Amino acid sequence: MPNTELHTLTIEELSRLLRNKSVSPVEVTELYLARIEALNEQTNAYITVMPDEALTDARRAEEEIMAGDYRGPLHGVPIALKDLYDTAGVRTTAASKIFANRVPDKDATSVMFLRAAGAVIIGKTNMHEFAYGVTNASSYFGPTHNPWDLSRVTGGSSGGSGAAVAAGLCTAATGSDTGGSIRMPSALCGIVGLKPTYGRVSCAGLIPLSWALDHAGPMTKSVFDAAVMLNAMAGWDPDDPATLAAPVLDFTLELRDGVEGLRIAVDPNYAFSEIDEEVEVAVKQALNVLRDLGAELVEVTAPQLAGAALTILNAEATAYHEEFLETRSDDYQPDVRERLEKGFSVSGIDYAHAQRKRQTISREFEALFEEIDLFATPACAVPAPRLDQTEVTVAGETVSVRKPIAQFTRLFNLTGLPAITVPCGFSGHGLPIGLQLAGPRLDEATVLRAAYAYEQATEWHQRRPVVWGS
Amino acid sequence: MPNTELHTLTIEELSRLLRNKSVSPVEVTELYLARIEALNEQTNAYITVMPDEALTDARRAEEEIMAGDYRGPLHGVPIALKDLYDTAGVRTTAASKIFANRVPDKDATSVMFLRAAGAVIIGKTNMHEFAYGVTNASSYFGPTHNPWDLSRVTGGSSGGSGAAVAAGLCTAATGSDTGGSIRMPSALCGIVGLKPTYGRVSCAGLIPLSWALDHAGPMTKSVFDAAVMLNAMAGWDPDDPATLAAPVLDFTLELRDGVEGLRIAVDPNYAFSEIDEEVEVAVKQALNVLRDLGAELVEVTAPQLAGAALTILNAEATAYHEEFLETRSDDYQPDVRERLEKGFSVSGIDYAHAQRKRQTISREFEALFEEIDLFATPACAVPAPRLDQTEVTVAGETVSVRKPIAQFTRLFNLTGLPAITVPCGFSGHGLPIGLQLAGPRLDEATVLRAAYAYEQATEWHQRRPVVWGS
Repeated sequence: MPNTELHTLTIEELSRLLRNKSVSPVEVTELYLARIEALNEQTNAYITVMPDEALTDARRAEEEIMAGDYRGPLHGVPIALKDLYDTAGVRTTAASKIFANRVPDKDATSVMFLRAAGAVIIGKTNMHEFAYGVTNASSYFGPTHNPWDLSRVTGGSSGGSGAAVAAGLCTAATGSDTGGSIRMPSALCGIVGLKPTYGRVSCAGLIPLSWALDHAGPMTKSVFDAAVMLNAMAGWDPDDPATLAAPVLDFTLELRDGVEGLRIAVDPNYAFSEIDEEVEVAVKQALNVLRDLGAELVEVTAPQLAGAALTILNAEATAYHEEFLETRSDDYQPDVRERLEKGFSVSGIDYAHAQRKRQTISREFEALFEEIDLFATPACAVPAPRLDQTEVTVAGETVSVRKPIAQFTRLFNLTGLPAITVPCGFSGHGLPIGLQLAGPRLDEATVLRAAYAYEQATEWHQRRPVVWGS
Repeated sequence: MPNTELHTLTIEELSRLLRNKSVSPVEVTELYLARIEALNEQTNAYITVMPDEALTDARRAEEEIMAGDYRGPLHGVPIALKDLYDTAGVRTTAASKIFANRVPDKDATSVMFLRAAGAVIIGKTNMHEFAYGVTNASSYFGPTHNPWDLSRVTGGSSGGSGAAVAAGLCTAATGSDTGGSIRMPSALCGIVGLKPTYGRVSCAGLIPLSWALDHAGPMTKSVFDAAVMLNAMAGWDPDDPATLAAPVLDFTLELRDGVEGLRIAVDPNYAFSEIDEEVEVAVKQALNVLRDLGAELVEVTAPQLAGAALTILNAEATAYHEEFLETRSDDYQPDVRERLEKGFSVSGIDYAHAQRKRQTISREFEALFEEIDLFATPACAVPAPRLDQTEVTVAGETVSVRKPIAQFTRLFNLTGLPAITVPCGFSGHGLPIGLQLAGPRLDEATVLRAAYAYEQATEWHQRRPVVWGS
């Protein structure tokens, strides 16, 4: 295989070549750095590229592998980090002017874990400022463009990671997800995004948006890769009081077990109301594929969300930003500042009710998952809107562009349940559509297994976006 | 044994007589009803006595036991419930004018559990209105008087249960604990009070004070009795989203295993600052007893609490009462209304920080309990103040009377860790002093074991208060 196609490879594929020494970590890192140099301008996926650090790490990985000290499937694999994952000695900006020159002295815990697994960090990806955005919110470093259509959004907030993975500018990336920020850009960019169970992956060293809702997780070219990334990232951390002491098994072990007998639930009134017709068709076809693979489709009535997640998000985001809002108000992007200022009007009483709602809805989903194995929805209700759109018309209603992007994801931030998006089709305009599958607490294995079965039975992941190069 | 002494018996002692049919549930229930009739006026421990219901239940228990259908150590035992535990068909007032005529149509879950274990409910005990008080807060039904000195408070909010158990007006009682409301009155009334792990006992059917901090639990004459009551009360409940699915073992099983080798930690700067001298001496002597029994005393620095518990309490209490504060403001006792109104000024940002603090301090205690088995403090920093006292002088400082009563208990509402108080001495005025022992999450067994070892090695529990009768 000529080196010029290494960027098409998943972790699963690349790691075989690295392990048997037919490709060097240096070679693949150099290829990605060259691609970023040539192509980043189109998508603006990266805020910071780390050529020197990456090549140093790649050389060390090469030495280790040549010496027979192979660490596993991430060894020598170039990955990107959303620019709110702290990196020792490399600026970590959260895409804000306020942190434009902020250089942490310590890696985030999950970054330490990824490095320990041998991953080569090649850069920091663009995002919505402080992760506080869904679609067309701002970055101090300018917007990210969707590799499938440069006039369109990537979705957010982890849009740079979505674009970088989709455009072949890294093998895999990390994102963070407070209301859908891993799953939305993954869906709109046609890749796999996994929000693990709340507390499964440490958020220590990530710039927070909302302590109660923040999740760290992988954004990848394939479901297998998401499992490999989660293997490295997951685990208890004394520095994050929300992390769980739950055992971390190898998430690739059950991937090939199929969906025979799995009860996959759909709430038709929830999943297929207020959504784009092409999305509806694609998701229904995807469910049929799962049924044909042996899953049992069941209809349920899903617990209702109401506004609890937004209440918590608004209060917690503003709690973190309170000081900067006083001292550096002008340095925020206007739309982000406006959202942050809303948090001041959330009362303790509102928050108390929202917490209670969070507890109640989590219990309701727990009860639901006694009856079912997975809960399916579209990832987003529409394909990627244009960058200049502020409104979108869905099912005859004109709404803020944020609404249809985020309407299915936030539920699983409030409940903390694991949820994945996997590509399940394309719109007439060639824009990706994602299927969301959520599972019981700490049962990422089943979520990954079903997504894998679906992925392997379909060919959506083999399509290439506009930005791909030769 | 003449029947006139049945009221001195613990559940452990009484249940032997009931089981071997040498005493009838009807006989013991009649005795308690007669004692309440004769003595309740002195302490005002009961808001509502249930003679008809109790005698009906006692007769059924008698029939069952006579028929050989013995249910266990609570069968036929007369107990009292704090008047915020819902009782089907019997008014449940929370000691408020607002609920003075409120008659639930369903028992609280823990009441159903207690009835299923065969307990005979004889009445509903006095409390601070809506449980929102520590010392001299009000009840619509008048204050409760301490059986050891009728001019003194029982502490609260479960003061009626404390007085009823201490004065021999029931065999055992239930309380609820949001900032110490089981442990404070238990300490000041010279009985045992156990606040279990958060979520161990369902709070469904209890009038809430603060969802995040409320705990239901037993108030008893002995540590063994607390274990027996917890056995009945504990367990997962679909109606309380906070309850845990943790297995409920028999909490009496390890009681006699002693304290040999247990590491009991004290933070001297925390436990012995700003406390009454007699309390300090009594608690230090108690620790020496535990050491002499084989425990290892270790000094630690405890995580700091700050005001997080109060922030959550203020916001959640007001969240529940919001509507009544608008429509029936005048029906609250003035001091309770004043406290409830404070909740309106808690911001969502304050609450968010408090939640984060809760998460962090819980993690810090989790780490501490890797090194130790139990954490010891006084239960209250002073013995019971007089009913007319609003301030108290402790260690040379004059402070609100609430402060020294609540300063050691609230920490374990915020962390949700199990904590018990056991009598450990008396002041020069003959007022009881309590030792608090807290343990790791879900490890009530170790908390009970150490309290039991201490209790069995000392004779404090054999003293009788002023209100006791012949």
